[in-house]
Amino acid sequence: MNTLGDKALLPAGLQDILPPAAAHEAGIVERLIAAFAGWGYERVKPPLLEFEEALLSGPGQAVAQQTFRLMDPVSHRMLGLRADMTPQVVRIAGTRLRNAPRPLRLCYGGQVLQVKGSQLRPERQFGQVGAELIGASQERADAEVVLLAARALEAVGVQGLSIDLNLPPLVGALAKDLGFDALQSAALREALDRKDAATVSQLAGDRAEPFLALLRAAGPADEALVELESLRLPSAADVELDRLKRVVGLIRAEAPEVSLTLDPVEHRGFEYQTGISFVVFARNVRGELGRGGRYDAEIADGSSESCTGFTLYMDTVLRSLPKPDVARRLFAPVGTPVARVKALQAEGWRIVGALEDGADARTEAKHLHCSHVLIDDSIEPVDASLETEEE
Amino acid sequence: MNTLGDKALLPAGLQDILPPAAAHEAGIVERLIAAFAGWGYERVKPPLLEFEEALLSGPGQAVAQQTFRLMDPVSHRMLGLRADMTPQVVRIAGTRLRNAPRPLRLCYGGQVLQVKGSQLRPERQFGQVGAELIGASQERADAEVVLLAARALEAVGVQGLSIDLNLPPLVGALAKDLGFDALQSAALREALDRKDAATVSQLAGDRAEPFLALLRAAGPADEALVELESLRLPSAADVELDRLKRVVGLIRAEAPEVSLTLDPVEHRGFEYQTGISFVVFARNVRGELGRGGRYDAEIADGSSESCTGFTLYMDTVLRSLPKPDVARRLFAPVGTPVARVKALQAEGWRIVGALEDGADARTEAKHLHCSHVLIDDSIEPVDASLETEEE
Repeated sequence: MNTLGDKALLPAGLQDILPPAAAHEAGIVERLIAAFAGWGYERVKPPLLEFEEALLSGPGQAVAQQTFRLMDPVSHRMLGLRADMTPQVVRIAGTRLRNAPRPLRLCYGGQVLQVKGSQLRPERQFGQVGAELIGASQERADAEVVLLAARALEAVGVQGLSIDLNLPPLVGALAKDLGFDALQSAALREALDRKDAATVSQLAGDRAEPFLALLRAAGPADEALVELESLRLPSAADVELDRLKRVVGLIRAEAPEVSLTLDPVEHRGFEYQTGISFVVFARNVRGELGRGGRYDAEIADGSSESCTGFTLYMDTVLRSLPKPDVARRLFAPVGTPVARVKALQAEGWRIVGALEDGADARTEAKHLHCSHVLIDDSIEPVDASLETEEE
Repeated sequence: MNTLGDKALLPAGLQDILPPAAAHEAGIVERLIAAFAGWGYERVKPPLLEFEEALLSGPGQAVAQQTFRLMDPVSHRMLGLRADMTPQVVRIAGTRLRNAPRPLRLCYGGQVLQVKGSQLRPERQFGQVGAELIGASQERADAEVVLLAARALEAVGVQGLSIDLNLPPLVGALAKDLGFDALQSAALREALDRKDAATVSQLAGDRAEPFLALLRAAGPADEALVELESLRLPSAADVELDRLKRVVGLIRAEAPEVSLTLDPVEHRGFEYQTGISFVVFARNVRGELGRGGRYDAEIADGSSESCTGFTLYMDTVLRSLPKPDVARRLFAPVGTPVARVKALQAEGWRIVGALEDGADARTEAKHLHCSHVLIDDSIEPVDASLETEEE
């Protein structure tokens, strides 16, 4: 291998997307965003680079360790290369769009970069597509974003959707209600994240039962709801749980086809969430297709507003979809009138034009992987018998 | 202003694109790429970051000074944040796709970042959309890419297109034919770029006439061709010029509506071009919509191949288009059946769903900038008389 062989090497976790995958990915992104737009979510496009203190404040703190930083030779200040678009959209809502009417529905799609890949997601660059419902604390807002994620994914052809609903603040509220201090509460949360009933019993002693009941309730939503129906928790926790039940009802009513599970004690990855949250899966697909939930966002006037939203990860979304169809490519000899070409394009043909007179059109069409060739203005399939002649 | 006021500040040359501009931009990008696809150009998607030596070699040298660099904590090597996508596409063609049949037609769309903005283009992040025709040295290849740029821009609605055709190697070839050395040749090129006939006369003495004739020929293509018809240059330069004439003929025949100008001595910005090159303008629009031309690309086996292609700059392309239409937004009260919503979406309506029962639908629709409201399942325009009540 010479130097160009080295040039083909890309840094770990970064890759070239080739035909037809690149077009497929872009098409799916646009269709997801079109689905969001159909529900009134308007697209914003924040920049790839921002001042690091803006990018890494608020919800951005969660990805601070994952953010590439570099010096801006113009301002002589540190910039961050976005590792997550959500904090940027929240910033836009709270600054440039702070006077836009609430609830504010925004959506976005773009590339993010992370310093390190994980075992589950080795990619260091991936596409994020998401939607945020800003300044809307209603239960219907919780339901709307879960339904929006499901509908958009169904619209692009994802099958066997499954959504796990979580309530990250619940364990903390319950622990507080029951008189545990912050350290004990954190230990309980960790044990519950591990589904470790024995440790929960040990930590909580005679106050363990409500935690264990919540742990038992985790599973398919209908059964979980039955389990939770009889459960009476102290005040703050009960309010949270009641809301979750009603939101499940709203989602069930509108999207009965989506498989819903409940895990009211799950907290991992929801450190900034303040209410109902969720993770999206698809049957037989490794990894999360996306996640979202409720959070508080700062506004420029110093107040804050309650929001909910979600992000879809394009790498997993694409893994959950069938391969794209191969396009119909038609080889057109020199002299094909441009009006004829345009009519064929309007029918969906991709026209590969000859660059030279005289060469045998069938051979050239075959060579260029065209499915069809235009001969005497008639569309003919490229002869399959030529297949064997290709090296 | 508090800290969020500061958060609203973005580094110079970087910006948030808000509704409806963000959706408009994305839509135009996809339509340009769809136009390229209609002519057999297949999309590739290189990563935002690469090892700097790969990113900045070959045609990438032109943007080396404009490339943000950062350390990769994984490989401990320097990475570059792409300032131009063309070198990446050329790298893909020469490495991963080196065995794909030629001519190879590729296209791309994505964001690039540059260290400093210029007076003409203060943006440091902008979208590039382009196409490359790899391994095609024919005159029809030159014509194809010029026509492709014109057709794609016309397809998205750019009016008053004007393309300036250039021949960057011509002056060097002519200077060599006439016996000038490299230093003299560079001085002549510079004077010709400035259209400075006096200096050309002074530098070239009794050999100045062919240069001056080329300088005089610059202008609308038809007149330029008449001017050039009678011009006889020494061998190498004459071959170049003959080819330009034939390519103009090919373009004229297929796209008579495009305004073509010729400037055979222009060289600025074409330091890496080896043949016919061009810059795209639109009437009454400041700046270039794009540029392209012929160049040599290295292949992984050590050889090189002749290519041609172009890049469009989305900031200028968008300036040349009318503002997008405002979407029809319909406010739907709680309880609107989801089947009804989907039918309305299929008709192009954007549905903004109520999050609460009871609030007055007209008032809420108006507040959320909806053009219409669904009342008793009938679509009614939002009463214009409410306009004055909005603060």
